[in-house]
Amino acid sequence: MIISLAADAPVSTSVALLAAATTLRKQARTMPDGRGGLLITVDGSLPDDLLHGPGVAAVHRSHKPYVLASLEHRARTVVTVGDVRIGGDRPVVMAGPCSIEGRESLLRTAHAVRAAGADILRGGAFKPRTSPYSFQGLGEEGLRYLAEAREQTGMPVITEVMEPEQVDLVAEYADIIQIGTRNMSNFPLLRRVGQLRKPVLLKRGMSARVDEWLMSAEYILSGGNLQVILCERGIRSFDPATRFTLDLTAVPLVKELTHLPVVVDPSHGTGLRSLVGAMAIAGIAAGADGIFVEAEPDPERATSDAAQTIDPEELYRIVQRGRLVAEALKATIPTQLTGGMREGTRELAAVGD
Amino acid sequence: MIISLAADAPVSTSVALLAAATTLRKQARTMPDGRGGLLITVDGSLPDDLLHGPGVAAVHRSHKPYVLASLEHRARTVVTVGDVRIGGDRPVVMAGPCSIEGRESLLRTAHAVRAAGADILRGGAFKPRTSPYSFQGLGEEGLRYLAEAREQTGMPVITEVMEPEQVDLVAEYADIIQIGTRNMSNFPLLRRVGQLRKPVLLKRGMSARVDEWLMSAEYILSGGNLQVILCERGIRSFDPATRFTLDLTAVPLVKELTHLPVVVDPSHGTGLRSLVGAMAIAGIAAGADGIFVEAEPDPERATSDAAQTIDPEELYRIVQRGRLVAEALKATIPTQLTGGMREGTRELAAVGD
Amino acid sequence: MIISLAADAPVSTSVALLAAATTLRKQARTMPDGRGGLLITVDGSLPDDLLHGPGVAAVHRSHKPYVLASLEHRARTVVTVGDVRIGGDRPVVMAGPCSIEGRESLLRTAHAVRAAGADILRGGAFKPRTSPYSFQGLGEEGLRYLAEAREQTGMPVITEVMEPEQVDLVAEYADIIQIGTRNMSNFPLLRRVGQLRKPVLLKRGMSARVDEWLMSAEYILSGGNLQVILCERGIRSFDPATRFTLDLTAVPLVKELTHLPVVVDPSHGTGLRSLVGAMAIAGIAAGADGIFVEAEPDPERATSDAAQTIDPEELYRIVQRGRLVAEALKATIPTQLTGGMREGTRELAAVGD
Amino acid sequence: MIISLAADAPVSTSVALLAAATTLRKQARTMPDGRGGLLITVDGSLPDDLLHGPGVAAVHRSHKPYVLASLEHRARTVVTVGDVRIGGDRPVVMAGPCSIEGRESLLRTAHAVRAAGADILRGGAFKPRTSPYSFQGLGEEGLRYLAEAREQTGMPVITEVMEPEQVDLVAEYADIIQIGTRNMSNFPLLRRVGQLRKPVLLKRGMSARVDEWLMSAEYILSGGNLQVILCERGIRSFDPATRFTLDLTAVPLVKELTHLPVVVDPSHGTGLRSLVGAMAIAGIAAGADGIFVEAEPDPERATSDAAQTIDPEELYRIVQRGRLVAEALKATIPTQLTGGMREGTRELAAVGD
Repeated sequence: MIISLAADAPVSTSVALLAAATTLRKQARTMPDGRGGLLITVDGSLPDDLLHGPGVAAVHRSHKPYVLASLEHRARTVVTVGDVRIGGDRPVVMAGPCSIEGRESLLRTAHAVRAAGADILRGGAFKPRTSPYSFQGLGEEGLRYLAEAREQTGMPVITEVMEPEQVDLVAEYADIIQIGTRNMSNFPLLRRVGQLRKPVLLKRGMSARVDEWLMSAEYILSGGNLQVILCERGIRSFDPATRFTLDLTAVPLVKELTHLPVVVDPSHGTGLRSLVGAMAIAGIAAGADGIFVEAEPDPERATSDAAQTIDPEELYRIVQRGRLVAEALKATIPTQLTGGMREGTRELAAVGD
Repeated sequence: MIISLAADAPVSTSVALLAAATTLRKQARTMPDGRGGLLITVDGSLPDDLLHGPGVAAVHRSHKPYVLASLEHRARTVVTVGDVRIGGDRPVVMAGPCSIEGRESLLRTAHAVRAAGADILRGGAFKPRTSPYSFQGLGEEGLRYLAEAREQTGMPVITEVMEPEQVDLVAEYADIIQIGTRNMSNFPLLRRVGQLRKPVLLKRGMSARVDEWLMSAEYILSGGNLQVILCERGIRSFDPATRFTLDLTAVPLVKELTHLPVVVDPSHGTGLRSLVGAMAIAGIAAGADGIFVEAEPDPERATSDAAQTIDPEELYRIVQRGRLVAEALKATIPTQLTGGMREGTRELAAVGD
Repeated sequence: MIISLAADAPVSTSVALLAAATTLRKQARTMPDGRGGLLITVDGSLPDDLLHGPGVAAVHRSHKPYVLASLEHRARTVVTVGDVRIGGDRPVVMAGPCSIEGRESLLRTAHAVRAAGADILRGGAFKPRTSPYSFQGLGEEGLRYLAEAREQTGMPVITEVMEPEQVDLVAEYADIIQIGTRNMSNFPLLRRVGQLRKPVLLKRGMSARVDEWLMSAEYILSGGNLQVILCERGIRSFDPATRFTLDLTAVPLVKELTHLPVVVDPSHGTGLRSLVGAMAIAGIAAGADGIFVEAEPDPERATSDAAQTIDPEELYRIVQRGRLVAEALKATIPTQLTGGMREGTRELAAVGD
Repeated sequence: MIISLAADAPVSTSVALLAAATTLRKQARTMPDGRGGLLITVDGSLPDDLLHGPGVAAVHRSHKPYVLASLEHRARTVVTVGDVRIGGDRPVVMAGPCSIEGRESLLRTAHAVRAAGADILRGGAFKPRTSPYSFQGLGEEGLRYLAEAREQTGMPVITEVMEPEQVDLVAEYADIIQIGTRNMSNFPLLRRVGQLRKPVLLKRGMSARVDEWLMSAEYILSGGNLQVILCERGIRSFDPATRFTLDLTAVPLVKELTHLPVVVDPSHGTGLRSLVGAMAIAGIAAGADGIFVEAEPDPERATSDAAQTIDPEELYRIVQRGRLVAEALKATIPTQLTGGMREGTRELAAVGD
């Protein structure tokens, strides 16, 4: 059950509801509703006679499992970081190396992707690696290089956090906190970043259903952090021809379900450099609010993910093409009936040439 | 082993090779190479001294499992049907009902999708249905209606064939023969349509790897029918939010592997009408040579696949948007270096606005 | 809608129902119900007043999509072939080579698997091969060798059919007709073998849901052929460590849904010889009515599927272990309460040692 | 590169190797090898001349990604908890509620599953829940009830930990620490439990390949905690008929790759109470070292996972059947040749009856 309290509801109402829940041994939680009011969620339900206190705006007995993430809850969210608006009227480009490998290489990459059109610099300082014997990232040293790259290029930076205890440290340096695919269901971590007041990019788990992904967003939102960006990065499937299967249909689908912006990661989604460009453009055409790509000046040298990392020249082409496609999609299409069937036909005959 | 004979190779060479294979109890097959010469494929290999006869142009001891479908084998294939060129310089639109339900409704649909911009009319007369108790299609009666719709609208028609014995009948009426997802590995059927000299649209099996799909194309090509169109229509995955998972990455991937054109079916790929448009456009942006959609004037009334069928108004918007995106993708992107880093930067700063 | 007519229903009742369906332009079909009566299935429904004729035993307006395959429809089916009962009180062993490669090798294999405990000889004469250039099987020559092996060993034989036109030929030689995983949704083929009065082993499609598999069984049953054996052979999944993912849970699941016997193919299910034994035994423990394995005296020499083919010595061990496990499962377990909690505890303490 | 140092290697050898790695800016790690010696793992490799110091027992330049988990590394691991030996000569039964819901209900369940034959009590105090609004577990209160249940029944207890900061708390109460499927790739958590000297049960990620699962075990082992138990609990697949697809083939497969014991969770693996028994038995037949099941006296009342929870009566039957099957599998099968082909045939003819 979810009880919605108006912005001017007296504290006594919420106190009474929480006390009732405790008495009945039901867990209850409060959270801001993002519009000045308060939501109280209760495992199970409370008796009807308790639900009529002053300020009770609405009682949802049955609801989608996610509430704050739901499109019915509020209008489109635009996440603003510096000058960059994610979910606004043009797709955003986040680019950079998979792992930060050193100061020089990061700064060089930052300038190169900036010149190629990137809006935001990505780079991993704490890296989730399948093997305990692989390079695990530079840690805080890497975060400092990121901050320096931001200073030099003016680009906001995004980097991954892997455990609750690291959140404060990472948040000190990063403009956007990334939750990786392996942590989409790391609920303590989600709760922890939900307490921040900084944007969080939430990657879809590699075998997460769309509803589970939105529930993980809900964990963050329910902590009061309303700046969540979704990122589709490929799901696990049966064809080894690509590293993952980029599920672009998830883009228009989540646009129907949630107000949160969504970006696409064609680097992990394909695992192959030669396919990144086509899938980045396709992602934009599907309606994504941006792309998230691995790029650096000398991709072959990258310690991790070399096979899927593009160079700045290719990034430049993607940015240009993406801009043209985004513009094309903004064109108003007159309804066919307005033009009349015959004119529609003539118009379309031209299309058919 | 594959032995390639030149166009002017004497018959005695091929006879000697086939005789040798028979003597060694190895199966061998001959097929046109599409350029006037002949290919002889042998299970295993023949002794070296037999491989130097007059006209032996090349001997491939190791090779990709598909040969004729391989991009190395020949330049891009354009399949021409009437005025329509599939694999040419603009994406083609194939639209119509899932099943042909009657003469009036088919003709009405044909005119409507024509007016909305379709190039080719699709419609099923023989339908593969999961249940033996479901409507199985009008059969030859449906084929006759298709032919009438072609006559009235000028559009070529495509329809599905399900078994070898039906091939001649269907080929009598259809301009393009469709092999459905459930028959991608129906090898006797593939062999049979390989004997036709009519275009074949080969849908990807719902759990087929890309290499298996190309091998199925190879079955058709190896019969001498070089007019094969691939169709990505969604693979089976774990999220019930969509009917299938449209694997758009397969589009640029097969473009790297084969010379055959590829189209995208966003209707089956998503299963949801509201997502068809976005994924059709994304497919074109990914480089597809066309789209294959279920459309009819009154989608809710459709006997099958109603939930994924769009109306002509939506088809019109897709055609218009698709045209704009395809045009946008044709723009030449100057290399960043040509423009100079500084100008590139200026240019891109504009992108960033 | 499904209308069930009693065995003594007058012909006039079925004629009237079929005429009504025709008038209303609805497709209708009749089929034996396996108990002397008749089922009439209608796409959609007929008016109520037509449903009260003499002999109308039941009208099912809503029903599971499969009817004849449903456990509610009839008691457990036992398929009898010669002396062998599939679905009876002990698991059956079907073994032999993937492909029949020659007379001598088949006869040698037949004797070896017979000595190792096989009940039924399997072997492919018509082979579905991913590549048009691979060995496609010996065809009718192979069928003749199978017949000879049956004569020499007394074992019934099972072999695959791939297209409707081959069905009569294969049925002439085989005791059980096999429908392979790639043809589970080849509906014309299913209809054709539904007209036989010979057992059919129906492999699950590699990406078929259990309900789709049962619908394919329904195609065969609805033709009047009630001797269908299901075969779980592995589904497509994401881990390349095994060729497919053997879905053993499907065994107890289909036992809850259908009266048909089900066997397990651990050879294709794993793709690895060393795992075949454990998964064959696990299949029997899960309740399977038999196993279907690739075995021959010299597995390494096999033209196809060598990596998953076991030798007769391993088959012998599997047969022995399978027998012991099947016997163990027949033991009556006294209910815990009968023995009393304290005695149950004592008994179980022993288990816990 | 992995360098193995003998138990009597002088410290100077390891110091020299680590210093060399630092100088070359390569990350290096040391860990006990479980046999008294030391392993040094280096990202990349060190120059040859450094690899000949005193006590260098072996240098592995290329190796499986997991080393400590590898079967080549050591003989079968048996994890001992109280009187219970996991990986020993009989399958172990871990049973209990999904979530601990209260003191009375836990104690009642503990006695009931003990009487039914359970060896170890399971129960969740910290619960990973898809929704932030669902019951998240009793936390430390639940741990105290677990400890009380252990005291009353004598059974060791296992419970889940979800974040590094909780590890010490949970380890204070639990005999075995559980890492859930959503945390299989939570590397900071794995590192943390690797520092414990308590058994850890590591569930397979729901979309993890077997090699990734073993790499996660390697994280724990490389911290010096050698008591790891693997748990197969079902992977994500396309058929909604079951909650997950229990991949039983993983059991004999990991037995070929690792020395670690492996148990099976048929509750999550199927999601359906009626299938738990058959799949528990099948798991034992496949070679599992135990089963991990959700059981309580009144399954329908369970707050979570009610549909897959069995009652003690069914648990008792499973324990009894599992014991009989495990005994049957221990029987020595004489080789067929020893008995002679003719006798083998006679023996087997009996099987064929």
